[in-house]
Amino acid sequence: MTKVVVQVAEAERAEAALASCKNLINAMPDAEVEVVLHQSAVSAAVKGSGVEDAIRELISRGVKIAACGTALGKLGIDKSKLIEGVAVVDVGVAEIVKRQKEGWLYLRL
Amino acid sequence: MTKVVVQVAEAERAEAALASCKNLINAMPDAEVEVVLHQSAVSAAVKGSGVEDAIRELISRGVKIAACGTALGKLGIDKSKLIEGVAVVDVGVAEIVKRQKEGWLYLRL
Amino acid sequence: MTKVVVQVAEAERAEAALASCKNLINAMPDAEVEVVLHQSAVSAAVKGSGVEDAIRELISRGVKIAACGTALGKLGIDKSKLIEGVAVVDVGVAEIVKRQKEGWLYLRL
Repeated sequence: MTKVVVQVAEAERAEAALASCKNLINAMPDAEVEVVLHQSAVSAAVKGSGVEDAIRELISRGVKIAACGTALGKLGIDKSKLIEGVAVVDVGVAEIVKRQKEGWLYLRL
Repeated sequence: MTKVVVQVAEAERAEAALASCKNLINAMPDAEVEVVLHQSAVSAAVKGSGVEDAIRELISRGVKIAACGTALGKLGIDKSKLIEGVAVVDVGVAEIVKRQKEGWLYLRL
Repeated sequence: MTKVVVQVAEAERAEAALASCKNLINAMPDAEVEVVLHQSAVSAAVKGSGVEDAIRELISRGVKIAACGTALGKLGIDKSKLIEGVAVVDVGVAEIVKRQKEGWLYLRL
């Protein structure tokens, strides 16, 4: 099965990136997709962010959304503020590398 | 043979990205290279764009330039407006993932 | 062993990218990491740049920092201006492709 780890680093690119993720799973419905939000892009995972609906839709369609815990700490975002269903990983970039080691394909949006 | 799928997502990065592609094929003349323009970067593939000459040169040197059809539709760009020789793929990010599955290396510019 | 080639293209993203590299090697202390600075990001490798301390720390911890020689030439930066320990490669994007061919994982920051 195709597995794809998707990286989103910049908050200002989150909207376009999540739209691209949706296009990806529409085109490849059998793919397993994990989106790692890190650096400023973790702000997209906060309740009330401008892309909350897009994140909820992706989660409902089976996409894993993971926020970088290190970035959350740096930005002072408490985990209780995150949209339900968003996972937290210790270090976003390490998650991306680990997935590639496991054979996942990589897409940097 | 080395095969590289190159991703360009942002219109404002197209000029630098295409220059990097040229450097890549100069350094690795035997490499097969496909550039996927998606999101706002599809505008670079329109006739009269500021990077038309760079795109024509890459095509003349054997690089495939593919524009994301989904992005073209979103931006209301008709295919007749594209520079001659530019291919259209349904979903740019799916093309990038498909190439990686086929063993192509990946470069996000 | 995990080997990761890290790409930094944009000068304005260098600070966040180098911080992410530090997080990566903290999380994966056994990984071999090479950071390729190309396009405008080569300016980060110049003595007195705002990220000189971050670059020195990464080098002291065993990370290879490589600046794209083509970009240095384009920006008129003489190699004597680079922070001690920074390597120069002919073409940054070719270095990234070459490392992937050798089996390195890829991270675009």
